[in-house]
Amino acid sequence: MARMTQRRKIHRFQLDGAGAENPVRYKEDVLAAEEPLEIRIGGTSFAVTMRTPGDDFDLVAGFLVSEGIIREQAELVSLRFCSGEKDGIQTFNVVDAQLRPDVPLPDTKRHVYTSSSCGICGTDSIDAVRKTIHYDVSLDGLRVPVDLLAGLPDRLREAQAVFDRTGGVHAAGLFRMDGSEPELLCLREDVGRHNAVDKVVGWALRQDLLPLTGLVLQVSGRASFELVQKAALAGIPVLSAVSAPSSLAVDLALGTGLTLVGFSRGHSLNVYAGRERVIGSRAGVPEVAASA
Amino acid sequence: MARMTQRRKIHRFQLDGAGAENPVRYKEDVLAAEEPLEIRIGGTSFAVTMRTPGDDFDLVAGFLVSEGIIREQAELVSLRFCSGEKDGIQTFNVVDAQLRPDVPLPDTKRHVYTSSSCGICGTDSIDAVRKTIHYDVSLDGLRVPVDLLAGLPDRLREAQAVFDRTGGVHAAGLFRMDGSEPELLCLREDVGRHNAVDKVVGWALRQDLLPLTGLVLQVSGRASFELVQKAALAGIPVLSAVSAPSSLAVDLALGTGLTLVGFSRGHSLNVYAGRERVIGSRAGVPEVAASA
Repeated sequence: MARMTQRRKIHRFQLDGAGAENPVRYKEDVLAAEEPLEIRIGGTSFAVTMRTPGDDFDLVAGFLVSEGIIREQAELVSLRFCSGEKDGIQTFNVVDAQLRPDVPLPDTKRHVYTSSSCGICGTDSIDAVRKTIHYDVSLDGLRVPVDLLAGLPDRLREAQAVFDRTGGVHAAGLFRMDGSEPELLCLREDVGRHNAVDKVVGWALRQDLLPLTGLVLQVSGRASFELVQKAALAGIPVLSAVSAPSSLAVDLALGTGLTLVGFSRGHSLNVYAGRERVIGSRAGVPEVAASA
Repeated sequence: MARMTQRRKIHRFQLDGAGAENPVRYKEDVLAAEEPLEIRIGGTSFAVTMRTPGDDFDLVAGFLVSEGIIREQAELVSLRFCSGEKDGIQTFNVVDAQLRPDVPLPDTKRHVYTSSSCGICGTDSIDAVRKTIHYDVSLDGLRVPVDLLAGLPDRLREAQAVFDRTGGVHAAGLFRMDGSEPELLCLREDVGRHNAVDKVVGWALRQDLLPLTGLVLQVSGRASFELVQKAALAGIPVLSAVSAPSSLAVDLALGTGLTLVGFSRGHSLNVYAGRERVIGSRAGVPEVAASA
């Protein structure tokens, strides 16, 4: 946990109702740590991402899944920290992944800025993801009671350790929903929402749990195209976000058969795709048919 | 505005206090649009980013500033939409930038994933940005009354058109602070926080306003290393965020002489770096000296 947060001195201004400030308070604040991580494959630099240190092996494993490079534990031979190039000092900011020799190496000449699955229009982007997908989530028969689903953001927040101290990290949590209460299998936090999801997916790969059939991924914040892409590549049938999805996130969910939930706020939620997986609450009230 | 939002049909579940759902409502919802944008320089593909369509020329211009490729309007000869490669149909998702012939072209072989200024440790990342910076914001003599500063998030929200309809976009607003009330010079919205900032910076470059001396950039959400980098490269002396900054965002602000404000919430705010630019409120209450 130590590396996940850092302390900095700040000045805090508190304004009263009249607009005049109370005395400035000068104190130490706990911040979410952010540092670069270089990801190497077989010793060759592949990517650099800004992330919150901690669970770095999970992050790299999940990143390789999200990029469509690996799909199961057996393809990942080893992960290790390399020495930083700077005076041979160990920075714990460079991770090298050794893949099984038969795994095709990605084209590192391909220039990628934000997401590797972008095309020149939304349809191209969706087609690119569909070509990469190993697991067909549309076949996943999971059914989730709406009240359990709506309660996941509170469960996520209760379990967040770093957020409590900093207010500055995103979280992703993987839940099993077949008991009387949701069971949190893995929670990961990061300043980057996409990193938090990669950490969860990487944890699952390293546990040899892919595809993540029958499970729900709850994320803080919004749902972008990239998050739906990561969920679909890991075989997760339901992605639920606390805030709004983008148009292309919805289109990708529809195109892959994934259930996408947004604005999940305890007392209400919106289903943007794959509505058949969200069923009546456990209270036994009969589900009311949708009227179009 | 039309391309900035899209409509999708959703199912909305509203749970009552007893945990049983009310009838499902099936309705149309307005979503923030997200589509890929390919950025070309002199006809050569340089980057693809997911963004909310609209203000694309601003986005590309700002991206080129943030990458350290250009610093003034005269270096950008032209911007134009290219035909999509797909059947020659105009997708408005490919923009080609022609630079002045003497502007060194970036090394497109350099593999960049999230941010081009990452090093293998935080200090390297900060050094890389400092080498790229054209304007020394540490010399900027701007002073901002704390009450005006704390009011910017409300001003930003009032001016946000897309957020009102979708709840799903980030915003960045550039403010002049030397009058009795803050003056909003430019507001841009995007599903990506970094894109919203690039759009504002690109607007300014195209107006030949760089460096943005004496101005304040207010952003929704959190402040990452990348956002501080963009502000510093545009010569903006004060960056204010509604939520938390990361540790490296603070360190980069300290390293470049930029004022970084976080948790700006109307009635209070935290100053993480460059505290000298935040002065007493207009109400005339004398500023209280900080006690360490």
